[in-house]
Amino acid sequence: MGTLDKILEEINNANSIVILTHENPDGDAIGTSLALYNSLKLYGKSKVDLIIPECPKTFMFLPGAEEIKKTSEINNYDLAIAIDCASFDMLCEDKDYFENAESTTVIDHHGTNTMYGDFNFVNPDAPACAEVMIVALNKFGIHIDKNIGTCLLVGIITDTGGFKYQGVTAETFEFVARLLNKGVNVSNTYRKVLQVKTRSSFELSRVAGDRLEFFNDGKVAFTYVTLDDYEKFGCSYGDHEGIVDIGRDIEGVEVSIFVREIQGKGLKVSLRSNEAVDVDEIALLYGGGGHQKAAGFSTKGDIESVKEMILQEVRHYLYN
Amino acid sequence: MGTLDKILEEINNANSIVILTHENPDGDAIGTSLALYNSLKLYGKSKVDLIIPECPKTFMFLPGAEEIKKTSEINNYDLAIAIDCASFDMLCEDKDYFENAESTTVIDHHGTNTMYGDFNFVNPDAPACAEVMIVALNKFGIHIDKNIGTCLLVGIITDTGGFKYQGVTAETFEFVARLLNKGVNVSNTYRKVLQVKTRSSFELSRVAGDRLEFFNDGKVAFTYVTLDDYEKFGCSYGDHEGIVDIGRDIEGVEVSIFVREIQGKGLKVSLRSNEAVDVDEIALLYGGGGHQKAAGFSTKGDIESVKEMILQEVRHYLYN
Repeated sequence: MGTLDKILEEINNANSIVILTHENPDGDAIGTSLALYNSLKLYGKSKVDLIIPECPKTFMFLPGAEEIKKTSEINNYDLAIAIDCASFDMLCEDKDYFENAESTTVIDHHGTNTMYGDFNFVNPDAPACAEVMIVALNKFGIHIDKNIGTCLLVGIITDTGGFKYQGVTAETFEFVARLLNKGVNVSNTYRKVLQVKTRSSFELSRVAGDRLEFFNDGKVAFTYVTLDDYEKFGCSYGDHEGIVDIGRDIEGVEVSIFVREIQGKGLKVSLRSNEAVDVDEIALLYGGGGHQKAAGFSTKGDIESVKEMILQEVRHYLYN
Repeated sequence: MGTLDKILEEINNANSIVILTHENPDGDAIGTSLALYNSLKLYGKSKVDLIIPECPKTFMFLPGAEEIKKTSEINNYDLAIAIDCASFDMLCEDKDYFENAESTTVIDHHGTNTMYGDFNFVNPDAPACAEVMIVALNKFGIHIDKNIGTCLLVGIITDTGGFKYQGVTAETFEFVARLLNKGVNVSNTYRKVLQVKTRSSFELSRVAGDRLEFFNDGKVAFTYVTLDDYEKFGCSYGDHEGIVDIGRDIEGVEVSIFVREIQGKGLKVSLRSNEAVDVDEIALLYGGGGHQKAAGFSTKGDIESVKEMILQEVRHYLYN
């Protein structure tokens, strides 16, 4: 009996099910969670809750999004399913729902997953958790309709940067072909989640673009935004998304650095790299982490001195 | 006997073959032409020429690109094959190669194709000519290897805007899955042809972003670049690509207007629209044309008065 068979058995036995995901949820976390939520409803489960305390506005168009709960009156669910979340600690603030559940299941695609559920279905080769979910739903015999398919597509689009990150596989494109055949509109979905910027996001990108400086013969790009910018443009959570890519996508740039002020939490430094440098090594030095070509860390201090500090470190890696 | 059987017969009978495409060739024109060029070599044809007088630098990384000829000493090819070209008039300047060939074939995906060849294989439902070519190569029994696949992928990526235009179909994604299985790297190819901006292109976009103004409650976005900008940033042909999309991709914007000065030719006005307005109607008023959501025209005058003129017209369409 495979893991998915056991998970299906748990689903069949549970009267109440809660779906949870990681904090600061992105499109894959929300899209895949909603896909499972809609699927379990369709499967006939009467009591299913999806709890996400804060959901970015961008994803509120998704089927079922208006039913997302910020909290729940139930404390002891029969089954808790964690989606796209590598560890127990990374679950959304109220971890009790997971801890107090009778049975726990994890469905994920992070290579660093700690296998913290009773049953864990994790495929680190999948570029999006949505792809892991497609395999699971097929195994469960749940028909992927247009609504579920749109949720899954949002997961794939956001976690692959619009089908372009290195992680994409032939299977990614095969899955998308199948979703199209279910009536999902790739073009409209792509536009909603990746292409359209809010006015405040545009203003923030514009000021970040203005401030972008090049160093070391154009090999390093640096820019930043401040809390004043956020206030001036009426920004909300997520409006900085994509700014670090402005620098990375300029010919000749090897490392792109983006610093943003965070209310009460100092500075967040995001690093992106093309070929020459593994930026996770730099992030590690400052207590952060990430992937070779995309990493970050938090720090204190004023932007100017953090800039000098990180530029010096990047140069060190660039020329060694 | 189907059209493709007949075309294959022509290929088998021809000792000399010339491949041609449309003027101002884009990624689909060049990628698909190169895919056929490499395929016919692989198929064993000893005399095959691909003639493209001017090929953008972006595509010179493609296998076979260094063998592209600007002109040829041969005037009477046995077979001429026109790729991605809707009419005889739109072929690259030297149309004699087509006119003087013993036999002519057209492979294309434009709905407006005039069927100007002896044999015409045209599929207007394909979002890229590269997809038409995949079907043809399969029929010819020519194995698509990694090199040919990379050329075809460039066609698909550029003509679908990175898999996101409305024209994409399930087949598009199925084709890409098959290309990945041949060893083609989607991520690297995407990055080379769509993602990376030259430094001068970035500088031009940045200044255009700075100048971007909103009108009519954010429903209209306007920006421009001048010949001075081109000179200041050392711009070359194509560096303005994508600037008109900055405005279109901001939430609430219905019409994006982008004006650029062209050496000795006055101003080029580009219009993009989301839902409310068909901008080809506006372009037509000034002797231009295009599609409903993407159109343009040329005009004379200073930027400020052209701006007022076009803003007035756009408002008229926006509120009528």
